[in-house]
Amino acid sequence: MQPYALTIDKFLDHAAKWWGDREIVTAGAGRVGYETLRQRSNRLSGALTRLGLCTGDRVGTLAWNTQHHLEIYYAAMGGGFVCHTLNPRLTVAHLAAMVNEAEDRVLAVGAGLEDSAQTLLQHCPSIEVVVQLDDSPASLHMIAGKRVFTVETLLASYGAEARWGDFSEDAPAGLCYTSGTTGAPKGVLYTHRSNYLHTLRALQADAFALTAADSVLVAVPMFHANGWGFPFAAPAAGAKLVLPGRQTDGAWLATLIRDEGVTVAAGVQTVWQGLLDYLDATGADVPTLERVIIGGSTCPDALIERMEKRLCARVQTSWGMTELSPLGTIAPARGRARAIASGRPSVGLDLKLTDAAGATLPRQRNVTGHLKVKGASVVDRYFKAQAEALDAEGYFDTGDLATIDDAGNLTISGRTKDLIKSGGEWINPAEIEAIVGRLPGVGLVAVIGRNDPKWGERPILVVEPQKCHTLNERALLDALRGNVADWWIPDQVIQVAHMPLAPTGKIDKNRLRTEYAGA
Amino acid sequence: MQPYALTIDKFLDHAAKWWGDREIVTAGAGRVGYETLRQRSNRLSGALTRLGLCTGDRVGTLAWNTQHHLEIYYAAMGGGFVCHTLNPRLTVAHLAAMVNEAEDRVLAVGAGLEDSAQTLLQHCPSIEVVVQLDDSPASLHMIAGKRVFTVETLLASYGAEARWGDFSEDAPAGLCYTSGTTGAPKGVLYTHRSNYLHTLRALQADAFALTAADSVLVAVPMFHANGWGFPFAAPAAGAKLVLPGRQTDGAWLATLIRDEGVTVAAGVQTVWQGLLDYLDATGADVPTLERVIIGGSTCPDALIERMEKRLCARVQTSWGMTELSPLGTIAPARGRARAIASGRPSVGLDLKLTDAAGATLPRQRNVTGHLKVKGASVVDRYFKAQAEALDAEGYFDTGDLATIDDAGNLTISGRTKDLIKSGGEWINPAEIEAIVGRLPGVGLVAVIGRNDPKWGERPILVVEPQKCHTLNERALLDALRGNVADWWIPDQVIQVAHMPLAPTGKIDKNRLRTEYAGA
Repeated sequence: MQPYALTIDKFLDHAAKWWGDREIVTAGAGRVGYETLRQRSNRLSGALTRLGLCTGDRVGTLAWNTQHHLEIYYAAMGGGFVCHTLNPRLTVAHLAAMVNEAEDRVLAVGAGLEDSAQTLLQHCPSIEVVVQLDDSPASLHMIAGKRVFTVETLLASYGAEARWGDFSEDAPAGLCYTSGTTGAPKGVLYTHRSNYLHTLRALQADAFALTAADSVLVAVPMFHANGWGFPFAAPAAGAKLVLPGRQTDGAWLATLIRDEGVTVAAGVQTVWQGLLDYLDATGADVPTLERVIIGGSTCPDALIERMEKRLCARVQTSWGMTELSPLGTIAPARGRARAIASGRPSVGLDLKLTDAAGATLPRQRNVTGHLKVKGASVVDRYFKAQAEALDAEGYFDTGDLATIDDAGNLTISGRTKDLIKSGGEWINPAEIEAIVGRLPGVGLVAVIGRNDPKWGERPILVVEPQKCHTLNERALLDALRGNVADWWIPDQVIQVAHMPLAPTGKIDKNRLRTEYAGA
Repeated sequence: MQPYALTIDKFLDHAAKWWGDREIVTAGAGRVGYETLRQRSNRLSGALTRLGLCTGDRVGTLAWNTQHHLEIYYAAMGGGFVCHTLNPRLTVAHLAAMVNEAEDRVLAVGAGLEDSAQTLLQHCPSIEVVVQLDDSPASLHMIAGKRVFTVETLLASYGAEARWGDFSEDAPAGLCYTSGTTGAPKGVLYTHRSNYLHTLRALQADAFALTAADSVLVAVPMFHANGWGFPFAAPAAGAKLVLPGRQTDGAWLATLIRDEGVTVAAGVQTVWQGLLDYLDATGADVPTLERVIIGGSTCPDALIERMEKRLCARVQTSWGMTELSPLGTIAPARGRARAIASGRPSVGLDLKLTDAAGATLPRQRNVTGHLKVKGASVVDRYFKAQAEALDAEGYFDTGDLATIDDAGNLTISGRTKDLIKSGGEWINPAEIEAIVGRLPGVGLVAVIGRNDPKWGERPILVVEPQKCHTLNERALLDALRGNVADWWIPDQVIQVAHMPLAPTGKIDKNRLRTEYAGA
């Protein structure tokens, strides 16, 4: 059969040819059809080449979800360069470490991020070219040795038609660092093949199920693991793409959904809580919305129920990781039953549960195990790492503990690195946190292990009360009795006014261990 | 990212692991779950190895749509052999030519085909092993030098667990000969990669859109171009698979749809006409049916309308070819509007229209051109052919004339080899046939070119009247005036009692040319 490299420029080519008028809308800014966007992206590829970039060179982006960011995505990937998305919510020190390891030669900077970029650039000698996105007034100062353009001045002075896809499907296309709530951030280098196959897997009718009739709101940042793949999936399906820019508050999203006839929306649960609160407060509705794809963390049943009732939309829970491109499992797009846990894998992702030593559990249902995954869109080794991150059978260790029910639905039940070994046996902090987290007055909660001369480690409970609440420490522990083994019950309760958070919003357990556990 | 070969055994592995109880049902016979079917197929692979088959060896099948046929599909492909499907409706001479070119070492024979096989085997020295399918009484005589098994005796005596997928994704998986209504049949050798990618493309939400909640009736024969890909798509999606065996009459299908809760059905239009006639005659209904995927030839609007009304199901027209694995274009699975023409391509299949010399037409919409296609599931050269079947840009020439409307819907408007060159200009017989075919009393109609000393070729019209009708030849030609150019009007009308048909049911234009055009 024909040689036909699986390169992601083909998605935009397809959209340009068959769905040329379908729009990419940026909230509060402009709109453009796929045909024009393809042409602009392609000419940006040509510009990057004329500026001296070579195949495989990295193009950093520090930007929100906008048309220009999407143009840079395809300009970089289509041209054979690597699109390295950076999370603007990280510290300059974190970002500089990533830019320098990646040796980015270009940095694309979104509206409102000029000041951060100005500081960042001082620490990033590899960057030669800065591209200001989003038609914001050119506010980046000239920096010695670096050339500064807007998208339009770059197109005007260097834009040139480029030959896209003239490389192997195994060529790198994207680079994204894991959030690194613990340990140093690690880069995942996506290939064209891995992104292409992820797209086809995610587009299945039991997963994203996008069609050309859909209008898709991507409320997940494009710097989070390929924006969950929507920047590829939408043009591949011919769907309209709705990009919210920087803002994702309830009022903003409700307006956008209504104005752009959004049928499918994707984002983390806090975004949808904001939307629900806004709708409840104003009595507004979002009648066009059919489905909400939710990921990033396990979604409580009560929120799913509230969403389905208030939005009159189906909720699809999911589980994924940067290392998986990112989709792992997802609840089906259609069907009568409400979403259960994080759903199932589409074909092309193999899962297994092992014990701590890596041996496959003889029973794979209704037991907790270490979750390992295999597939064409799963990392094999981190960027610039020496060693493979795979076991003997070629599986990647997610670092998650999980169970799979009889119907095949996955539930993440903890992180292996958070496990506490007490007296030679394992305690899973996530189970304790789930119970305490449901108690009245409890805000954020974390269980960490403290070194113990007798048991090795013992759990302690750190809790942040909700505003204007006082917690009874004994009551917190009493609530655990009968629900976990007695020896799982923490030795101490520590109340804190502010739980330390990592830049991604997750609880910073490393800092907790330093402060409270003598680690 | 991880190496992960795209081999089709992974589809059945996925179904066995995640949808192990979902059934494969054979009408009038038994039912089995994916987990058991996977185990049986795998052990059949082991048996083939133990019988001496080597990687890449061909396993012929002469069989209907049954569980055993599916087991042989996966046993052959999963084990690294090639599943060569043969059309039982062809003559023994045709079949022998195919078997001998393919050098099949095994022949699997379906119920009711034992006599044909007995004759065929006498002309096929390469076949060493015969496997009788479908639990029919062992009726094949012993043949000198050939070993005869049933599926069960083969499993019992040679069955052994096999290691599946231990080969490159570019390894051959299937072989299917084109129908060869004109010229010698040509073999298309599918690879694992081409079948895998075809499956993911076909499963998109705007195409087959199968989910694990679906029950899929495959009324298209499994010997026609991978059964349109359903033997791969159903397990990949976890859908229930309903196989009708040999029969596809209306009563049989109506019962099957009702008993097995069929939601999606696929087959050629004559099958659905039979179903409609049965339902009209009996007043029965098929309430579970949601969609009918129709292919094989252009479907008249009137039939689409009748189907949608009577079946209360959405009709998805499509266009495909053996050389395309076979899906080319398809009307969407959902949406308000009725199917138009043959729909659009899903991402991963590139189409272009060229002139007769192969130059891409500057305008691709609303003009008739020669249809060329490119993609990972498109043939590059026929089996054992020396030359590539591709143009300079890597496109395959479908041999079809086509138009694409403003919305991107494809209409096949003729075959290039049927074109008649008269006075240096082209006449498209299909356009004349369409007009005459709609006239009262007209049954089958064909326009062929007859050699002409002055014009090169001139068209003549061959027509078979409907039963008990007499045709006025002048009226037939008059109907063309004003609808085609005057010089397109045939020089002669020939009425025949029986239009010659090829074994596939298509009009045999080669024979017409021999008989009436001095070719």
